[in-house]
Amino acid sequence: MKLPAPLEAVVEALQKLPGVGSKSAQRMALHLLKEGPGAMEHLGDLLRHAASSVGFCATCGSFTDRPVCAVCEDPQRDPRTLVVVAEASNVLTFERSGHFRGRYHVLGGLISPLKGIGPDQLRVRELLRRLEDGRVQEIVLATNPTLEGEATAAWLARILEPLGIRTTRIGLGLPIGSDLEYADDLTLDRALEGRRPL
Amino acid sequence: MKLPAPLEAVVEALQKLPGVGSKSAQRMALHLLKEGPGAMEHLGDLLRHAASSVGFCATCGSFTDRPVCAVCEDPQRDPRTLVVVAEASNVLTFERSGHFRGRYHVLGGLISPLKGIGPDQLRVRELLRRLEDGRVQEIVLATNPTLEGEATAAWLARILEPLGIRTTRIGLGLPIGSDLEYADDLTLDRALEGRRPL
Repeated sequence: MKLPAPLEAVVEALQKLPGVGSKSAQRMALHLLKEGPGAMEHLGDLLRHAASSVGFCATCGSFTDRPVCAVCEDPQRDPRTLVVVAEASNVLTFERSGHFRGRYHVLGGLISPLKGIGPDQLRVRELLRRLEDGRVQEIVLATNPTLEGEATAAWLARILEPLGIRTTRIGLGLPIGSDLEYADDLTLDRALEGRRPL
Repeated sequence: MKLPAPLEAVVEALQKLPGVGSKSAQRMALHLLKEGPGAMEHLGDLLRHAASSVGFCATCGSFTDRPVCAVCEDPQRDPRTLVVVAEASNVLTFERSGHFRGRYHVLGGLISPLKGIGPDQLRVRELLRRLEDGRVQEIVLATNPTLEGEATAAWLARILEPLGIRTTRIGLGLPIGSDLEYADDLTLDRALEGRRPL
């Protein structure tokens, strides 16, 4: 005996979520059933509602259910500093730490010749347009310290140079709480390069 | 900045699923968004469909999307042995092991004076009705070996006694692959009680 087909379909879809195996997907589906018919329908409605109402901010490209996101609309956020990230979810990571008071720009990916993604597929034109009014004074390139993230940052730095806007790379080095013993060579190299006077 | 409200609602609902914390719920929701607008809507549709089409078998009480479940309808399944379990999900557990070829009866709970659940709220009448045609020759009480499970099994055994149907309790003792060293006292007592000639 297998699960009833509609339930099996739910289990299979849940299984595709990150960190969810076949056993936990089944446990989730059965949990929803046990909660009564309302629970499963409710989650279904929430997902459909989010799918239809959440999109990307017209200005910065992060998630929002309005035309422009809360950060871009907030007059308290400093318009002079832009943190440039690859994905909309990266904005959430910065916002979780809660210390950055500037604004963001989401590229929507990274330059990757292997995947056939060039600068044209990224939100670079939108970035350049945001710089036209001269309010932005610093751009922090905060793509991941990976091959593609570094290449994209380097490419952007070259594009931005003629504009005369200060362009920086987010600090790379030893993560707080880590042990030198376990740092890989590349991280150590970057940490040495990024040393500062105390 | 928080997540857009419709997305936050999804994260909160996912967080109520077993084994899902706030971080993994957010990761799941963002994963669905990244997959494109279709993925989130699709899961929503599947959940709504399952919610409206999956119910309980009129005969045994386990999950099904038809009036009677696949096990109850299967003429190959031996009608002489009934395994009685507390929850519909327990049927899946037995079916997963795949060795039992008889049929099931789901009580829909356990007797629990503390939670105000008496025999009347369980599917006991339905069980007695299934015994009327005289085909069932053995009833295996397979409620959990917990206080409530044991009490419910004992109560059922007393109810079934006058019917003259062989009533057994599922074997209790050391789980396969376990170590005597780590067995608790109650399990050891039960294992001794349940000893058999080799």
